[in-house]
Amino acid sequence: MHAARPNELYAWQAARLLARRELSAVELLRACLDRIAEREPHVLAFAHLASEAALAQASALDAGTWRGPLHGLPLGVKDLFDTAAMPTTYGSPVYAGHRPAADAAAVVLCREAGAVLAGKTVTTEFAYFQPGPTRNPRNLAHTPGGSSSGSAAAVADAMLPLALGTQTAASIIRPAAFCGVVGYKPSLGRVPRAGVKSLSETMDVVGGFGRCVRDVALLGAVLTGDQRLNDEAALAAPAAPRIGLCLTPDAPQMGADSQAAWAQALRVLAPAAARMADAPWPAALPGLVALQKAVMAHEMAHALSHERTQHSAALSERLRGLFDEGMAIDGQAHVAKLQATAAARGLANAWFDDFDLLLAPSTLGEAPAGIDATGDPLFSRGWSLLGLPCVHLPFARGSRGLPVGLQVVGRWGDDHRLMAAAQWCMARLAG
Amino acid sequence: MHAARPNELYAWQAARLLARRELSAVELLRACLDRIAEREPHVLAFAHLASEAALAQASALDAGTWRGPLHGLPLGVKDLFDTAAMPTTYGSPVYAGHRPAADAAAVVLCREAGAVLAGKTVTTEFAYFQPGPTRNPRNLAHTPGGSSSGSAAAVADAMLPLALGTQTAASIIRPAAFCGVVGYKPSLGRVPRAGVKSLSETMDVVGGFGRCVRDVALLGAVLTGDQRLNDEAALAAPAAPRIGLCLTPDAPQMGADSQAAWAQALRVLAPAAARMADAPWPAALPGLVALQKAVMAHEMAHALSHERTQHSAALSERLRGLFDEGMAIDGQAHVAKLQATAAARGLANAWFDDFDLLLAPSTLGEAPAGIDATGDPLFSRGWSLLGLPCVHLPFARGSRGLPVGLQVVGRWGDDHRLMAAAQWCMARLAG
Repeated sequence: MHAARPNELYAWQAARLLARRELSAVELLRACLDRIAEREPHVLAFAHLASEAALAQASALDAGTWRGPLHGLPLGVKDLFDTAAMPTTYGSPVYAGHRPAADAAAVVLCREAGAVLAGKTVTTEFAYFQPGPTRNPRNLAHTPGGSSSGSAAAVADAMLPLALGTQTAASIIRPAAFCGVVGYKPSLGRVPRAGVKSLSETMDVVGGFGRCVRDVALLGAVLTGDQRLNDEAALAAPAAPRIGLCLTPDAPQMGADSQAAWAQALRVLAPAAARMADAPWPAALPGLVALQKAVMAHEMAHALSHERTQHSAALSERLRGLFDEGMAIDGQAHVAKLQATAAARGLANAWFDDFDLLLAPSTLGEAPAGIDATGDPLFSRGWSLLGLPCVHLPFARGSRGLPVGLQVVGRWGDDHRLMAAAQWCMARLAG
Repeated sequence: MHAARPNELYAWQAARLLARRELSAVELLRACLDRIAEREPHVLAFAHLASEAALAQASALDAGTWRGPLHGLPLGVKDLFDTAAMPTTYGSPVYAGHRPAADAAAVVLCREAGAVLAGKTVTTEFAYFQPGPTRNPRNLAHTPGGSSSGSAAAVADAMLPLALGTQTAASIIRPAAFCGVVGYKPSLGRVPRAGVKSLSETMDVVGGFGRCVRDVALLGAVLTGDQRLNDEAALAAPAAPRIGLCLTPDAPQMGADSQAAWAQALRVLAPAAARMADAPWPAALPGLVALQKAVMAHEMAHALSHERTQHSAALSERLRGLFDEGMAIDGQAHVAKLQATAAARGLANAWFDDFDLLLAPSTLGEAPAGIDATGDPLFSRGWSLLGLPCVHLPFARGSRGLPVGLQVVGRWGDDHRLMAAAQWCMARLAG
């Protein structure tokens, strides 16, 4: 019936088959569980696998009426989201065996739309830099990136069609880039964060991963409640966008592999775009990396006050270092940084008078070797601070054969336009 | 040694005596507990009283070195904040006996500054409109207001010098007004919300209550980490401010008691202010009440997705009604409302080029009779949507002898200037 094994189907394809009852939720889940059985011992993407509960949920979906756009699709949930029926550790031994009283709002939205909760995926420690055990499925000797390490790895390795992640610095875009999947970070404030461990109120965003743009569009429409994100017509025949080229002030840090992907994108997209031109960094807009780091350090040190004061010995040195940095910034200095952030957000709007999207680097290059660090978040820090929607497009290979790509960045709130433009770009880049 | 009983001291006075060891933390706590024993059977301000643990904490403080600005001050914590050592119900039977794994960040900040955690104070159901059992200590037949009902009542009744609250619509300013205490709602985003039950990410703010401006300045400096809020010199001799009079588009709803307080304030403040003039509602700024209601309904319906879908039968009709309202607003409509909110916040800044503060109504009038509703949040909805810092000033009595007052509103981030200006106003109004 299917050329591909069910676990290899795109989420949007599987969703159609499931809606027509040409594929059962149990059948799809079993294919995913088979793949997990084969690959999980090597990739270690899961903090908790809920096979039995997921099979029961899938059976119930098969026996019932169509529940919604995610009907029957197995979903991985980053272990930074509270789940009442699965342990929730936030990637820290402090919370070993923790069982929250309630599910995170985003988890409920997905389940109400028919998603099957397959398990919790590995996050770095409180979504900061201390890695979990997950390896890059494209090359097990390399990091999958972080902090949404397990979600990106599981989707990349066809263990699951979709997974939830979060981003404060680069925690969706970077693992998407390193594992070679599409990552979607929505506009700040559009997806409820209730029940997600709070790191930085100024930047935390809930988003997710899929293996194509249509898949994150499907998931994104459920998370934001905005059906325009998954507009069939717009995604099937997106209009040619006006593309602004934004290497950011950190362009000198780009490695050869990301530079090659950049050159390839320009070559392929320029002839077809409605417009393509440099989108210069506004003169009044400061470099955002130092500002993002300081805001994140102060807010994480405060949001995690309980862990900082009660469980210091159980925290990594990296995290304790961040807390020291953050506690050295007092409230007077912090509010000035929040004011600078608000001003930067105002300035960023001007880009989108001239362009439908910005094309920008996602990472310095391929996933670094080793799993003792998750790579540099440099190229996402600024967009995270600005709160703009981003989609990572995986379309190239680096010198070691690992995935490389670029991200597209949209106007705040225009996630649906960004999604269609991302689809337009990806159709050409992957062609 | 003290003219007043220790529980009747202002927090800033008690803090000085505690720092000099002229008052012990145990002595102060025992006075508070005596007052609680006398009054709590009538007022019902507490969801949980932690007498034993608080006495142990006070003893330890007395035996140790000075911990910080709140050293030895008993603090009430609204039962919307997670506390690991005390049950946390969020005002709902759904969470009867719930014990969170961690303390809310704001609670840790206060404890680290030396506060003694005296107990959890009553909140309405998930901080919305369904009241708890608390009565107004000024007249037990009247509502204390909500949602921070227990915190305002406990402070007003000299059971505690300080208490924490939160505001999404009017949940600090309204109970402060009805109980006759000073309520401080900080600028949105300055105080960490981690571990506070999320209702609306666009508006939720952590703040608190005291019996004078200096007391909320003391607490506010700890919560924001900005020492300028509690600047002794500025609070002792605040400069005369430029006062903008802002009755808001809802002025026709003001009752006679609030009108009389307004007239009194103008009469008293006008001769001494650096400037006093009408601060007209900007032409481009829409009425904010309908917008605030819609944003709150959508966000609460989503943030409380677990409760909405899993515990519907245990929720009040009022809350279920709000959820129906909120779920009828889809993500496309909601993001347009968030865009309108951002635009409104931009426009509001212009007020503060001409004025140091806005003087505005807090409530329609005195606390209504009965405890089956918590009064109308009308006059705080707009300021909550704008995210501006507000301080309620209790300085008058209404026709039934219950407290009445007004609020002062500052520029976003200028909480320290607002605090000094509030002190200037209050010194004249209470004189």
